[in-house]
Amino acid sequence: MTAALERQIAEAADLVTVALDALLPRAEGPEQRLTEAMRYAALGPGKRLRPFFALETGKMFDLPERPVLRAACALECIHAYSLVHDDLPCMDDDDMRRGRPTVHIEYDEATAVLVGDALQSAAFEIMAHPDTHPDGAVRAELVRRLATASGALGMAGGQMIDILGVRDDLGGVARMQRLKTGALIAYAFEIPLIMAHAKDAERHALMAFAQDLGLAYQIVDDVLDAEGDPETLGKAAGGKDAARGKANYVTLLGLDAAKERVELLADQTRAHLDGFGERAAVLRGSVDIVLGRRN
Amino acid sequence: MTAALERQIAEAADLVTVALDALLPRAEGPEQRLTEAMRYAALGPGKRLRPFFALETGKMFDLPERPVLRAACALECIHAYSLVHDDLPCMDDDDMRRGRPTVHIEYDEATAVLVGDALQSAAFEIMAHPDTHPDGAVRAELVRRLATASGALGMAGGQMIDILGVRDDLGGVARMQRLKTGALIAYAFEIPLIMAHAKDAERHALMAFAQDLGLAYQIVDDVLDAEGDPETLGKAAGGKDAARGKANYVTLLGLDAAKERVELLADQTRAHLDGFGERAAVLRGSVDIVLGRRN
Repeated sequence: MTAALERQIAEAADLVTVALDALLPRAEGPEQRLTEAMRYAALGPGKRLRPFFALETGKMFDLPERPVLRAACALECIHAYSLVHDDLPCMDDDDMRRGRPTVHIEYDEATAVLVGDALQSAAFEIMAHPDTHPDGAVRAELVRRLATASGALGMAGGQMIDILGVRDDLGGVARMQRLKTGALIAYAFEIPLIMAHAKDAERHALMAFAQDLGLAYQIVDDVLDAEGDPETLGKAAGGKDAARGKANYVTLLGLDAAKERVELLADQTRAHLDGFGERAAVLRGSVDIVLGRRN
Repeated sequence: MTAALERQIAEAADLVTVALDALLPRAEGPEQRLTEAMRYAALGPGKRLRPFFALETGKMFDLPERPVLRAACALECIHAYSLVHDDLPCMDDDDMRRGRPTVHIEYDEATAVLVGDALQSAAFEIMAHPDTHPDGAVRAELVRRLATASGALGMAGGQMIDILGVRDDLGGVARMQRLKTGALIAYAFEIPLIMAHAKDAERHALMAFAQDLGLAYQIVDDVLDAEGDPETLGKAAGGKDAARGKANYVTLLGLDAAKERVELLADQTRAHLDGFGERAAVLRGSVDIVLGRRN
């Protein structure tokens, strides 16, 4: 099962990369530097987990693939923009990302700011286009929820908390994670929920799944930060958070307790899908792969 | 007429500022720093010319005020975000804006990046909300066009061209202006055009009006940059473009020819409104005020 699932996740990633390549703007003239750098940021190596969740959940609801794929590409643009801006010298100041120089290293800082800005615009342009869904009200709702998940009360707010580093307790770290990464992971499931006009019970189950999965994913990230090999990770590691004086699940719980919590959360995460029966087999099976990731 | 018009523009600005204050997110907890800085950026002094154009054109089409006002606030969020990012050290490196410290000076660089990011998200969140328009397809179209005007083939692309400074001819300067500032000025008129399902002839006339007005506005800006008093302007001036080796309408045409071109363009701009008759009296009258601005 695992090998088949890993192949399925990889195939979804390829599907998204090809679709994104077709959707991202192309330019001639001097602004070509910007559109090329957007491609460098968005089309590079990446697991495309959020799009995979959206596509797989779309299948659970028997949705046609094309609308979900377009919306998933829009979501991936937001994710890609956030990485470019988070890597900036005034933010986390990271030189490497997924084994390649970050955008401000490969290009320059001004271009990196614009790449993030233009990728955010591209996300909403893709989402609002009639090709994404025939119903304008569905498109507008997809836009509105993505904007909320990305903004000051979502991802950007979470990054603000992370930068301030005012997190001396588990509650603070959990809140930061919910905003910074949890909101966008949850949004991956919202795409099919919105398109399928899903029932409240289905919505609540998938939102709980997303929340626990996002939390477990963050703890795995903190474990990798503490003990990961920079070469495998493709970015700096070796207790970078600790070196920066930032609290995270490992600094607060200790390495062993953090790993135990991931195991507990994995079971809890899968349990949220019980009501979906066999329809959720792939999603259920993907939890271990997502959490067992090495980079 | 002029004093009445100036009062009308000022009243529209107040209306927009009050509406924006109600629409921008509020937060408790550490991310409050972000929401406060967003307010600092978006609610400070400003002429709110783009919202004024949207509101006034909305009246021409007998549209109710509330939808146009919400959409105009979304547009103003995009404009405000672009100023925050343009002022960053890696971009134009400006310390003052409208007589106050820029966001990265008043707060810090990381906060300024996030303020821009979150203001862009806020724009699309406001636009896509059902309160903006009862028809979802209209909301989605408003989002899509704003995203296009903001992105790599619009404002962000224009800023890329401006940064590269590859503008040794009038054509290059004109193209940069069309993307960097023209696209968003034109969008102000698109709001009512989209909401009113306007006829092609009306659309073409208003887009031509917007294009010539945007061009004239840019030339006035370049004249002010060359001869303006920094205290009146509220930002650095005194040939800043020239000092940076950047071409603009004044460096390419000379000061006198640039001023003459503004006069010619003002007549040409007003002429585009002939087909609207008395309905366009305020818009027609506003051209001189907009171009006669001292800051």
